[in-house]
Amino acid sequence: MSKRFAVVLAAGQGTRMKSSLYKVLHPVCGKPMVQHVVDQISQLDMQKIVTVVGHGAEKVKDQLGDRSGYVLQEEQLGTAHAVMQADEELSKEEGITLVVCGDTPLITAETMQKLIDEHQAAGAKVTILTAKAEDPAGYGRVLRNESGTVERIVEHKDASDEEKKVQEINTGTYCFDNQSLFEALSSVNNDNSQGEYYLPDVIEIIQKKGEVVAAYQTPSFDETLGVNDRVALSQAEKTMKKRINEGHMRNGVTIIDPEQTYISSDAVIGRDTILYPGTMIHGSSVIGENNIIGPNSEIKDSKFGNGNTIKQSVVHDSEVGNEVNIGPFAHIRPASSIEDQVKIGNFVEVKKSVMAQGSKASHLSYIGDAEIGREVNLGCGSITVNYDGENKHLTKVEDGAFIGCNSNLIAPVTVGQNAYVAAGSTITDDVPGEAFSIARSRQTTKEGYVSKLKNKK
Amino acid sequence: MSKRFAVVLAAGQGTRMKSSLYKVLHPVCGKPMVQHVVDQISQLDMQKIVTVVGHGAEKVKDQLGDRSGYVLQEEQLGTAHAVMQADEELSKEEGITLVVCGDTPLITAETMQKLIDEHQAAGAKVTILTAKAEDPAGYGRVLRNESGTVERIVEHKDASDEEKKVQEINTGTYCFDNQSLFEALSSVNNDNSQGEYYLPDVIEIIQKKGEVVAAYQTPSFDETLGVNDRVALSQAEKTMKKRINEGHMRNGVTIIDPEQTYISSDAVIGRDTILYPGTMIHGSSVIGENNIIGPNSEIKDSKFGNGNTIKQSVVHDSEVGNEVNIGPFAHIRPASSIEDQVKIGNFVEVKKSVMAQGSKASHLSYIGDAEIGREVNLGCGSITVNYDGENKHLTKVEDGAFIGCNSNLIAPVTVGQNAYVAAGSTITDDVPGEAFSIARSRQTTKEGYVSKLKNKK
Amino acid sequence: MSKRFAVVLAAGQGTRMKSSLYKVLHPVCGKPMVQHVVDQISQLDMQKIVTVVGHGAEKVKDQLGDRSGYVLQEEQLGTAHAVMQADEELSKEEGITLVVCGDTPLITAETMQKLIDEHQAAGAKVTILTAKAEDPAGYGRVLRNESGTVERIVEHKDASDEEKKVQEINTGTYCFDNQSLFEALSSVNNDNSQGEYYLPDVIEIIQKKGEVVAAYQTPSFDETLGVNDRVALSQAEKTMKKRINEGHMRNGVTIIDPEQTYISSDAVIGRDTILYPGTMIHGSSVIGENNIIGPNSEIKDSKFGNGNTIKQSVVHDSEVGNEVNIGPFAHIRPASSIEDQVKIGNFVEVKKSVMAQGSKASHLSYIGDAEIGREVNLGCGSITVNYDGENKHLTKVEDGAFIGCNSNLIAPVTVGQNAYVAAGSTITDDVPGEAFSIARSRQTTKEGYVSKLKNKK
Repeated sequence: MSKRFAVVLAAGQGTRMKSSLYKVLHPVCGKPMVQHVVDQISQLDMQKIVTVVGHGAEKVKDQLGDRSGYVLQEEQLGTAHAVMQADEELSKEEGITLVVCGDTPLITAETMQKLIDEHQAAGAKVTILTAKAEDPAGYGRVLRNESGTVERIVEHKDASDEEKKVQEINTGTYCFDNQSLFEALSSVNNDNSQGEYYLPDVIEIIQKKGEVVAAYQTPSFDETLGVNDRVALSQAEKTMKKRINEGHMRNGVTIIDPEQTYISSDAVIGRDTILYPGTMIHGSSVIGENNIIGPNSEIKDSKFGNGNTIKQSVVHDSEVGNEVNIGPFAHIRPASSIEDQVKIGNFVEVKKSVMAQGSKASHLSYIGDAEIGREVNLGCGSITVNYDGENKHLTKVEDGAFIGCNSNLIAPVTVGQNAYVAAGSTITDDVPGEAFSIARSRQTTKEGYVSKLKNKK
Repeated sequence: MSKRFAVVLAAGQGTRMKSSLYKVLHPVCGKPMVQHVVDQISQLDMQKIVTVVGHGAEKVKDQLGDRSGYVLQEEQLGTAHAVMQADEELSKEEGITLVVCGDTPLITAETMQKLIDEHQAAGAKVTILTAKAEDPAGYGRVLRNESGTVERIVEHKDASDEEKKVQEINTGTYCFDNQSLFEALSSVNNDNSQGEYYLPDVIEIIQKKGEVVAAYQTPSFDETLGVNDRVALSQAEKTMKKRINEGHMRNGVTIIDPEQTYISSDAVIGRDTILYPGTMIHGSSVIGENNIIGPNSEIKDSKFGNGNTIKQSVVHDSEVGNEVNIGPFAHIRPASSIEDQVKIGNFVEVKKSVMAQGSKASHLSYIGDAEIGREVNLGCGSITVNYDGENKHLTKVEDGAFIGCNSNLIAPVTVGQNAYVAAGSTITDDVPGEAFSIARSRQTTKEGYVSKLKNKK
Repeated sequence: MSKRFAVVLAAGQGTRMKSSLYKVLHPVCGKPMVQHVVDQISQLDMQKIVTVVGHGAEKVKDQLGDRSGYVLQEEQLGTAHAVMQADEELSKEEGITLVVCGDTPLITAETMQKLIDEHQAAGAKVTILTAKAEDPAGYGRVLRNESGTVERIVEHKDASDEEKKVQEINTGTYCFDNQSLFEALSSVNNDNSQGEYYLPDVIEIIQKKGEVVAAYQTPSFDETLGVNDRVALSQAEKTMKKRINEGHMRNGVTIIDPEQTYISSDAVIGRDTILYPGTMIHGSSVIGENNIIGPNSEIKDSKFGNGNTIKQSVVHDSEVGNEVNIGPFAHIRPASSIEDQVKIGNFVEVKKSVMAQGSKASHLSYIGDAEIGREVNLGCGSITVNYDGENKHLTKVEDGAFIGCNSNLIAPVTVGQNAYVAAGSTITDDVPGEAFSIARSRQTTKEGYVSKLKNKK
């Protein structure tokens, strides 16, 4: 196999995005566009990936890290100028170079591999990725000669009426013979109304040398979408969402309404899990089998076992075991571990806490910085008072304890095994195992008080 | 009218579903596919419905109950073999037999009736339900002769290029003369690559006897969708949702966004009720007129009167009167009765309780196992302490009582008419009518304490 | 410029809506249909707008107020009869008169301006707004002569097979020479099966006088939708939603899923704000830049600064500053002011209150009728007890105070600067600045009590 290189064009400003965020960093399904592109290219056994950065260069580098090398395009003088920046990195190498735009987040490794295959089969010096557009207006048209190789590319504005009818368009992704590319780049000029150096000019230069210019037409026009404004960004999101969701459905996940279900490209979901509408699964969440999730649940960077139910709730950066029941309207905040058969009911927040097997916090509770043992019952309205205005402290509730409703456990504090805290108590001191603890006032009732009060008026 | 019978094919495994749930039991809009099919067939004055079961036979029987008879297909040797299992049940009968697949949840009684009508009008021994497919690839094509009756059916893989252009496809639903069907079935063989007995072979056998083979082409291709994987399952859900929602809209229900509103096929909704996006109405809920429901509300097996507002909330197995205000973020759990003009505000849970006319629980409360009278005010954070760790007990609050904020009512307990419970009280003993009851500590204030503390540091 | 007038037809009953709400008052994206129409017409320098009212006349007048004049059509005898009601108001004027139906909420000022332009360029006495329908069945077809002017309009039921193939349809919106209109109206008769006076008859009358009848074909068929039932109402909503959302996206707002995002036509949103699915922005809300809103958040008539995050929450008629964090599951009710860097966490309700800079109510709290100073910490479960059963009272918490968990602040009450209220306290008296205040019982613990109890059984 000849050596493979890739150049990712990621230096443009993206004026039409009207954003202070650099264009290629706008996310699609939660992942920046340029990251999608590099993730796909990375599957293709590349010797080297060179990303051309310009506007927002540092942020793009932060995003991609060491998965790419970088060259800086200080001034944006056109796509050919952009690729020229990689001259020092690549021009001495033999092999092929893919050139891909950082704003085409939908392109797949599979399509790029087919582009390379066609390039090699055709013995071409450059192969253009093309697609058939239902409405080709605005695109450069690819004109083929009788043998099927490319005669030339004509921009929309320069096309004759006959040429405008051609539906095969240039997607802006190319496979080059590496040396041909850099040789040709040195001949590109900027004699045009914009004063820019255009990459498609390379094609004509190569062809004039008598070399073969080939084209691979992908059947997925959708995949070649370039994102220039936020309307296109939302289209990319929709296409990516469909692709991700169909993958999960074919693997045995039921998605009641795939148009209203949002899953990151890195999430893993087991079969017979059912996702109700309005569910979002972000980041690198891993969800097991037979879970019922949603409607309107948001899970981020969390791990779920099997057989859980989570409804109208939010879970971030936490672990959930098996047969756990969460929601509706619950909130599991980061660094929580919810073990098997736990119940987290409505209006309950858990933060940086462990709830061990079989414990319940069924209503209106806050469990923060706590270690809750097994088979504990946290009554309605019970609260771990973890913050004294200066520091956070730990609450421990041991196995089998019963915490009455509307109790405050003022941390640091421990409630021992099987201990019983009476409803309405504010617990400031440790409660030993098997003990009963109470901290509330006796009831005083004044009979007839309300009627007397009324009579006074 | 000749006698009518139906055979429902529900024995296949559904490997492509990748599920431990048997294929025909996967729900569409909350109801298993095979149940949709039997519900529609049941509208057609059937003498007998025979469901052919195999994989998951017991669960299918549990689902359909006595609405169908059953025959067991122990081995799955093809569709003709499946129908043959009904031989003992049906072969001696005179009349017509519909054969319908249990994985076609969208088929309607109306379409099946038209199939029967065509069958009878044509004097046919078998009539095929066909549809026009935009993209017929993969389907068996129906080739008609000049008189419009069916010449033969050709499978996609056996079709000539010319035949592949035919858009009329076999949907797999048939109407047979009963005796012709069972006679022909006995002649079907399994001389094919799969070694299966195919039902379409019956057609050729009948035709060779010189009998008329007719076809009824339904205008609704969508209705004939067979569900083989979860992508198709989601398509069936979408089509069924559209059908259900359009029905409600034509009846005078406003659905702001029918693509984001999920209503079971059995729900009833009155006119001038408005459903906001993200609303789900499950089961056999009955909703009156002039309600405002949603966004993001979930109602299951509940009954609503008129003029209620329910926002961002969940209601299960309960009754709601008229002019009730629920939410946002409220949760009404089973066996609750919410009477007229009640208010259930944010972060309030009601379980197995009555809230009588005009009462309010506006914020952060739990009302469980309670009987709340009329015009009661349950203050913010008030809780019925219904569980002592072993048993659940009843709380009664009589008409006109006022329960202060953050109070605990420790059940069993009764607060009498017009009684007043002070905020922050834990009530353990009954409070007589018109009484004032308090159970909290006096306030102690240490002036300058905070500044002293700071100075010490 | 010649004088311009408009007649809005808003008298029909709308039987197919099956509603007690008068047809043109049904809202699209939160605004009644007829209001959309009048808002668009108002951009066209009209001398006078006359709305023809009938059913629900008073409610239509209440909606439109003095932005229109009104004439009453007591009996609904057809569209020509409706326009005739404006005779006294308009027939003596010279100029042009637009006639627009009040149930075409999608029509834009731009399209009406183009209709007027064509009218004037053509020297016509009447110009019809037409559109090209993919499926013209049911519509009146516009037949043009060779010069491009209108020969006649033929209703669907009267059209020949050839005429039925014409895709250019009459949208029911017209631009008339004012005097020609009222002259012609007096000649319209009701010799037809419905016994109604039809406005299109005017066209034939004008043409027979030898005057020019022109047509302007808009490229936006969608815009001309007339709403007659709730299915069409939902289509209008969808088209309007798309129009509104694309406008925001082009201005630099990221909308993750424009099909699940609902923004009123009057809302203003700054660039780099991100809207997650299920977000609704109602009324005349003004949202700044760099906000993160949703999923599933509902904002109504509120003002947001920059850099806020609001998730799974509801905000009505309130102001939110900058860098505020709201939700998930929070509820900000009317007349609240949430200042910079405030945190309103899960299960927190704020009503008619000020939260000054840097304050926090992170969990399970109710803040009603309160003035909360800067850098205040309201502990989990703390409640302002603002209602005594008769009146609402004010709670003040001054800068830097710390309110412990599950505390009740019984209004009217003031907690002074930097004061500290212990968890579980019910505060009835003012707490001076720098003071420490506590109102709770001492803890009593009975060791071994639980085991003894078990042994007794």
